[in-house]
Amino acid sequence: MPHPAREEIRLEGVLHALSDPLRLRIVRELAAEGVELSCSYFDLPVTKSTTTHHFRVLRENGVIRQVYEGTAKMNGLRRVDLDALFPGLLDSLLAAAAHQAARHDEP
Amino acid sequence: MPHPAREEIRLEGVLHALSDPLRLRIVRELAAEGVELSCSYFDLPVTKSTTTHHFRVLRENGVIRQVYEGTAKMNGLRRVDLDALFPGLLDSLLAAAAHQAARHDEP
Repeated sequence: MPHPAREEIRLEGVLHALSDPLRLRIVRELAAEGVELSCSYFDLPVTKSTTTHHFRVLRENGVIRQVYEGTAKMNGLRRVDLDALFPGLLDSLLAAAAHQAARHDEP
Repeated sequence: MPHPAREEIRLEGVLHALSDPLRLRIVRELAAEGVELSCSYFDLPVTKSTTTHHFRVLRENGVIRQVYEGTAKMNGLRRVDLDALFPGLLDSLLAAAAHQAARHDEP
């Protein structure tokens, strides 16, 4: 599975990846858990192929790293890369997402 | 021209609006100038109708406010609304964009 190198990650791509409610939710859960999680950990209200699509968009834009462990695809937030490229941005985005969720009483 | 009310502005929409290089550039210039600017102020390398489209996406997602002054369409950043909804986010995004531009020697 191809991943962009750190220096290939673009802000516009990261923002595109996070501009979808389900992808934003995936990133929030990865940040909250702080560990790699399998795709099946996420109970998303969409088909398996749509779930796969969302994870691919996150990977191709440099937001997550996907690795196989046996047959499970594990997903980890590229926090070190993102923090190095855009200091403070990820935390700011996560805080904004938490703010919005609290305001609208969403998960 | 319809604008979302403050409470209708969604983080996902703001991120979508900023996920395009030209729209990100428009927002950076509005933030840097700190005043309302006409569409014709921006010298974008695209057609007039594409320019109009980009401004509409920014308006519909609550990032800018557009008002007519005579025949000129003036554009202002909705900083007060965005800062109230997502404290610190806009500055963090602007800093990330400036960081990236400096790194890649872009405008």
